[in-house]
Amino acid sequence: MAKGASISGFPEWLPSERVVEQRVIDTLRRVFELNGFIGIETRAVEQGSSLLKKGETSKEIYLLSRLQEVGQENDTPVEDRLGLHFDLTVPLSRYVVEHSGDLAFPFKRWQIQKVWRGERPQEGRFREFVQADIDVIGQGDLPDHYEVELPLVMVSALECLREFGLPKATVHANNRKLSEGFYRGLGLTDIEGVLREIDKLDKIGADEVAKLLVEGCGASEAQARACLELADLTAADGAELSAKFDALCEAHGIASDSDAYVLARQGLDTLAMIVDEAARIRPGSVIADLKIARGLDYYTGSVYETFLDGASALGSICSGGRYDNLASQGNRKYPGVGLSIGLSRLVSYMLHTAGAHASRVSPAAVLVAVWNEEDRPASNLIANALRERGIAADVAPTAAKLGKQIKYADKLGIPYVWFPADKADENAHDEVKNIVTGEQTQADAQSWEPDTLVARQTVEIKGVEEA
Amino acid sequence: MAKGASISGFPEWLPSERVVEQRVIDTLRRVFELNGFIGIETRAVEQGSSLLKKGETSKEIYLLSRLQEVGQENDTPVEDRLGLHFDLTVPLSRYVVEHSGDLAFPFKRWQIQKVWRGERPQEGRFREFVQADIDVIGQGDLPDHYEVELPLVMVSALECLREFGLPKATVHANNRKLSEGFYRGLGLTDIEGVLREIDKLDKIGADEVAKLLVEGCGASEAQARACLELADLTAADGAELSAKFDALCEAHGIASDSDAYVLARQGLDTLAMIVDEAARIRPGSVIADLKIARGLDYYTGSVYETFLDGASALGSICSGGRYDNLASQGNRKYPGVGLSIGLSRLVSYMLHTAGAHASRVSPAAVLVAVWNEEDRPASNLIANALRERGIAADVAPTAAKLGKQIKYADKLGIPYVWFPADKADENAHDEVKNIVTGEQTQADAQSWEPDTLVARQTVEIKGVEEA
Repeated sequence: MAKGASISGFPEWLPSERVVEQRVIDTLRRVFELNGFIGIETRAVEQGSSLLKKGETSKEIYLLSRLQEVGQENDTPVEDRLGLHFDLTVPLSRYVVEHSGDLAFPFKRWQIQKVWRGERPQEGRFREFVQADIDVIGQGDLPDHYEVELPLVMVSALECLREFGLPKATVHANNRKLSEGFYRGLGLTDIEGVLREIDKLDKIGADEVAKLLVEGCGASEAQARACLELADLTAADGAELSAKFDALCEAHGIASDSDAYVLARQGLDTLAMIVDEAARIRPGSVIADLKIARGLDYYTGSVYETFLDGASALGSICSGGRYDNLASQGNRKYPGVGLSIGLSRLVSYMLHTAGAHASRVSPAAVLVAVWNEEDRPASNLIANALRERGIAADVAPTAAKLGKQIKYADKLGIPYVWFPADKADENAHDEVKNIVTGEQTQADAQSWEPDTLVARQTVEIKGVEEA
Repeated sequence: MAKGASISGFPEWLPSERVVEQRVIDTLRRVFELNGFIGIETRAVEQGSSLLKKGETSKEIYLLSRLQEVGQENDTPVEDRLGLHFDLTVPLSRYVVEHSGDLAFPFKRWQIQKVWRGERPQEGRFREFVQADIDVIGQGDLPDHYEVELPLVMVSALECLREFGLPKATVHANNRKLSEGFYRGLGLTDIEGVLREIDKLDKIGADEVAKLLVEGCGASEAQARACLELADLTAADGAELSAKFDALCEAHGIASDSDAYVLARQGLDTLAMIVDEAARIRPGSVIADLKIARGLDYYTGSVYETFLDGASALGSICSGGRYDNLASQGNRKYPGVGLSIGLSRLVSYMLHTAGAHASRVSPAAVLVAVWNEEDRPASNLIANALRERGIAADVAPTAAKLGKQIKYADKLGIPYVWFPADKADENAHDEVKNIVTGEQTQADAQSWEPDTLVARQTVEIKGVEEA
């Protein structure tokens, strides 16, 4: 006797909403495969030791215990227990090392799967959601052209999602080496701390961040202001970015032959390459934004966040970066670069803000009516003939009054109702009615074709309705 | 530093194997939607109270705990904790009740998702696997024609999977009411116990089952033998089934006006309808098999198991039944009938026994070569032109020697390598080479079409190779 019980943080779509999510997933998969990415799926669980290694979300893990072990969970150290993965990057790193002998490198993969975060329920955040990731992993090394190609694949994927109501997306790129080099050049040492505070800029503003830098990261007021100046730097192209950065270094006494500057310069060159190359292929799609920091500490080079025009409240919908140290095997490293779309939040936006909705709930284009239960086999034959020609068909659940059968079709959004011929009348024909237009015609299940516009279940956009 | 670490019971496919699984999933979805089933996805977790209610697998549940609650897990009773679902039927029942106001009944749904069983690791069984389910749920009542239609949908889906190496599938049907009525007619009262022992018939044989019935279910030797006689009953059609059953009842003194017989007769009539109707639509696809019992105790009428020709060791690959009491809301019941394919085991069979394999690892049909890194943008433009016309393309990872680039394509199974024209030569053309046939031709990225036979990544079958 299941009782209805929604669980906060575990979203679940109604059938018509699921159609939108399914189409979004289909679209992403198509774009990823067009670009030569290979689809994989990893198990939902990882060893605690893998999950606990990296990143600030490490405290938001769900651990598993077998029902029969209840009460003995703590006999096993957390590192040896199983937990649900909280992203798809840590599992990918483990998968690549585990199966390195069977993969061709660089390994380009797409992966769309659920992830879980063991957040406190009252926070109103998703504890289960779908991520859509692309990554490329090298064996030993990885050319930096992927650092512009991967965001561009995501841009073209997000562009395809505009048909589901998504606004234009812009990738904001930065580089950890650039930031780290600059901070070190200023004399700061708690680089991770500074990155973590800079990451809060959009949320709490410059003055609060300056305060945190001074109070928590050992920065002087001047150093804190210099960090904010860097975060504020904008540029139209690589050359301007380079010139402005050099001017900033000079202003703050960072010598161009210092180790710190050399490190920063590496990051700067990559970032300049990214914005120039992206501008050539898809102008305005990828811009330099020096306040992008990314909380997860496994990024070592490029970092990305993606924002939608007119939807700043949504925050970044597609994030990632380059990570050189996430996976290794002996002395061999597996550097990677990847981006991840938070799909569930995106679908939620499409449904509730952009007005995306399924053209109908049922995939069926036709409901075959049933005059009486004895004639059901005849209706089944008609439905099967349609299905064999690729036309999705359902059969009325009961031989109810015709009005009730049409109402069932209407409730499911099925556009056509099929009336089998009266067996008693030799001259009778099957007829099919478009219940939207009211048009009714003779039809033969072996040859009839639906109007192509209504034959397929699709996603449409309309103005936002009352919630 | 992720270290490779496979976890027993959590299978994970290599990229080429995942292609087969993905195609199987695509095929099932297509068949389910052609038949008017609506796709949903439920959250991975349910309340412990939902998971613990029904079925013998209730002891094989994974419970979750937040990392921050480690050590305090047992402050919360198991019923109030979250656990991973062990099937898709219990979640469906909960979903239907929770969203009943938003659904049209009867609600026909398909669902392909992972499920988890908290088995002991050493047993070598899957602890994570994919199920592919169809069910129809009524509100208040549910016509019995679905009890033949659903197995027939599964048969047509499994028929489509023969292109991936699956042998012919036959659904074996029985009915709980028939069995229960007969056992009660014999004077037995521990019906669940008898069903559980009969379920072991294929594994341990008739003599062992008879022993268990006598020792554990209060049966006399004669009663036990009568149960085995029923399990052994076979019939070519509904009429023969009915006649043989009546003869068996007479032989064991079960009066045709007894309550027990009336109950059995209800089940018998449904089962006779199923085999006769299935024989009319798809002869030989669904047969009566009176030893089918199904362990899960939520079935109340029809029960099904499905076996593959020549693969008896695999056991049932698609099982299910009718359940009238799984979901309710106040006085309103939501009876259902459904079947579930154990997809992971099926894919494992296809890969390792039937010789199914991807035609290539990469979805890309073309690898665009790169003469030197400065020319990479030209290669990217070619790849993008192909992608815009729906031709999946990859670009060589580095401007290595041509032989190395071709080797990369070969390793990924990419059939074509594209050579951009020499920029220095005005009369030069792009060329494309089929690296399987060696054929090389001039080509224009705006118009060239690959051979349709090699353009798409497909699944092929070959003789079983050395493991």
